[in-house]
Parts: sequence; structure tokens; C-alpha cells
Amino acid sequence: MRSSFHEQLSALTEQLAELCDSSGQAMRRATDALLQADLALAESVIAGHDKIAAESAQVDQTAFLLLALQSPVAADLRAVVTAIQIAANVERMGGLAVHVAKIARRRHPQHAVPAEVSGHIADMGDLAVALSAGARDVLLSRDPKRASEIRHDDDAMDEKHRELLTVLMDRGWTHGVGAAVDVTLLGRFYERFADHTVQIARRVVFQATGRHEPYRS
Amino acid sequence: MRSSFHEQLSALTEQLAELCDSSGQAMRRATDALLQADLALAESVIAGHDKIAAESAQVDQTAFLLLALQSPVAADLRAVVTAIQIAANVERMGGLAVHVAKIARRRHPQHAVPAEVSGHIADMGDLAVALSAGARDVLLSRDPKRASEIRHDDDAMDEKHRELLTVLMDRGWTHGVGAAVDVTLLGRFYERFADHTVQIARRVVFQATGRHEPYRS
Repeated sequence: MRSSFHEQLSALTEQLAELCDSSGQAMRRATDALLQADLALAESVIAGHDKIAAESAQVDQTAFLLLALQSPVAADLRAVVTAIQIAANVERMGGLAVHVAKIARRRHPQHAVPAEVSGHIADMGDLAVALSAGARDVLLSRDPKRASEIRHDDDAMDEKHRELLTVLMDRGWTHGVGAAVDVTLLGRFYERFADHTVQIARRVVFQATGRHEPYRS
Repeated sequence: MRSSFHEQLSALTEQLAELCDSSGQAMRRATDALLQADLALAESVIAGHDKIAAESAQVDQTAFLLLALQSPVAADLRAVVTAIQIAANVERMGGLAVHVAKIARRRHPQHAVPAEVSGHIADMGDLAVALSAGARDVLLSRDPKRASEIRHDDDAMDEKHRELLTVLMDRGWTHGVGAAVDVTLLGRFYERFADHTVQIARRVVFQATGRHEPYRS
């Protein structure tokens, strides 16, 4: 029973790691769709979210059954509860990729992102992908050092986000209010995506060490 | 033991209901701070979030201990897992109120919200407060009818949000890009606050009935 429990817990963690990858890939493709004004790609990200949502719900379900049937204790119990919390994070990450794709779709055949800030958006997309890969690695390795690298990438994301807002606010923005609204939302979506990866890493470290860092809002 | 368990579970639910109220009040005060350019009020919302975050973490902790010490099953187990998930929702609701307050603070002594859309923002603030009261009621009553009222208020919030974006995008916006960025973010914060209340209601109904509605992203 115990061994079966640990096998199932392992499988659960692998599923979550794959979901991190899936949502990172969704964000990568949403960013490409955005920067290339590629409608078909945007549509495929939007359609693909059902799979991420279903898999996240399945993790929830499996975790709940593990609690119900095996009544794990101590570290095992913490691991299962953490899996339920992380399933919510990865689902939101996928949802944020969908939001990016929807902006690409809404503006098609025009580009939603003016050339002046497309480099910023590309960088934020790259960071989002790196962060989701980091969250996956932390899930699989539970390595606190890898978790601190995530913090580093998240700081880079925050810096990019600040730069983006500076371009919007402080210089002469000549691309109109519609583009400003889109770029503001995009900045927020990438930043939130990053926050979820940080939270995943924090949850894994808490699970491994029992030390809780305060939630950053 | 069982009776003590149910008392503790009841206390946990009441704590969550109070947290719904606290985050609703935080959003009410953040909205007032925003519309009246009241720096002291904005600061008090920002400072007050530590309490909401701490209480949410305490719910987590208590729920975890209930799982660890009492190994509840079936409906009791579901109730405790749901409490952990809802604690994350209310924490975010409080965090979103802080984001609104920070926009008020950043723009002080100016008004962040142009008079043209202050009515929209006031309405969204009112809806947020009504929604958090609705989520509190659903937590305490587990009444599916009350839960469906939340859907109604959330639809009203979505409609207000669409109107706000229409004002920003489709008419001649004369208040500059900085104000457009702020108003875009504010719209998003109120909309997300509403989404969390809907999710709380959905979780409670799922817990009560076992029927899962798909997550809306």
C-alpha cells in the first residue's frame, strides 16, 4: 500500500511537471502568435487549454482520492495537499497563455504589439518559458538552489515589466490608447505567469522543508 | 473526536467567511481611496493586508492539522481540502484590493481615475463588495440559490468591464496614456476579484454536491 502510494505520488508530481511544461509551451506559442499576428496559432493555444484544464482537474481528483483512500500523514500528507495547490497554479498559467492568445486574435490581422515594445514582449515570453521550465525542475528535483534561480528570473521579469510601463507612461507613446491597453494587459499576464511559477517553487520548498515564506501579493 | 472535528471545521468556515468580508471591506476602502485620492486610506489598505495574509495562512495551517490529526474521509475530507483552496482565493482578493490602493497611492495627490469613468469604477467597487458578501453567504449557508446570485453579479461585473474598455478604446480618450494604463489595470483587478468570489461559490457547491463545473479562465 505504502509503496503503491509513493508510486502514485510520484506519478502525480510528474503530471504536474508536464503541466508546467504544457503551460510554458502554451505561453511560448501565444507569444509567437502575438508577435507574428498568427491567427491559426492563437486559435490553437485557445483550443488547447481544455486539455490543460482537464489534466489539472485530474491531478486534483487523483490527489483527493489519495487522501481519501490512503490517509497519508506527515510529509506524505503535505505532498498531496501541495499537489492540489500547484494544480491550481498551473491551470492559471495555462489560462494566462490563453489571455495572451486572445489579444493576438482580437487584433488580427493587425499586430497587437507595436514594434517599439515587441522586444520587451519577446523577452517576457522567453522569461515565462524559462520560469515554467524552472518550476518543472523544482517539482522533479525539489532542489532549493534551482528554486532560487526562479527568483532570479522572476526579478528579471519584474524589471522587464517596469521597463515596459516606463515606455508606456513616460515617453511619448504614439501608438494610441488601444495598443496601450493591450500592452498593459500583456505585461500583467506575463508578470502573473511568473508569479505562479515562483509560488510553485515556494510550495515545493515548503513541502520539502516545512518552512513557509509569506505570500507575496 | 468527531464532534470536536466538526466544531473545528465550523470554526474554519467562519474564519473563511470573515476573510471574505475583510477582503470585501479592503476593496471598498481601496475604491474609496482611489475615487477620493485619499492617501491615508490607501496606506491603511496596504498595511492591513498583512493581517488578511496571516489569517489566510492560519486557515491553511489549521486545515492541514485537521487532515493530519483526524484523517477525515468523504464529505469531511472534501470540506477541509476546499477550505485550503478557498484560503488561497481570499488571500488573492485581499491582494487585489492592495493593487487598487497602490494605484491610488502612486497617483496621489492627483486622481488616478478621470471623472469620465469614475462612475464605472464606483460601480465595479460596489459589485466587488456585493460579490464578497455573496461568497461569505454561500460559505455559511452552502445555498446553491445564493451561489447563482453570485453568477448574476459577476455577469454585471463583466458587463461593466466591457463598458470600461469601450470607453478606453472606442471613443476619444482625452486623459492620456498614463490614465489609460491605470484604468486598464483597475478594470482587470476588479474583474479578477469577482472571479475569485465565483470560484469560492463554485468550490462550496462542489463540496456540497460533488458536482464539478469546469473552471472558467
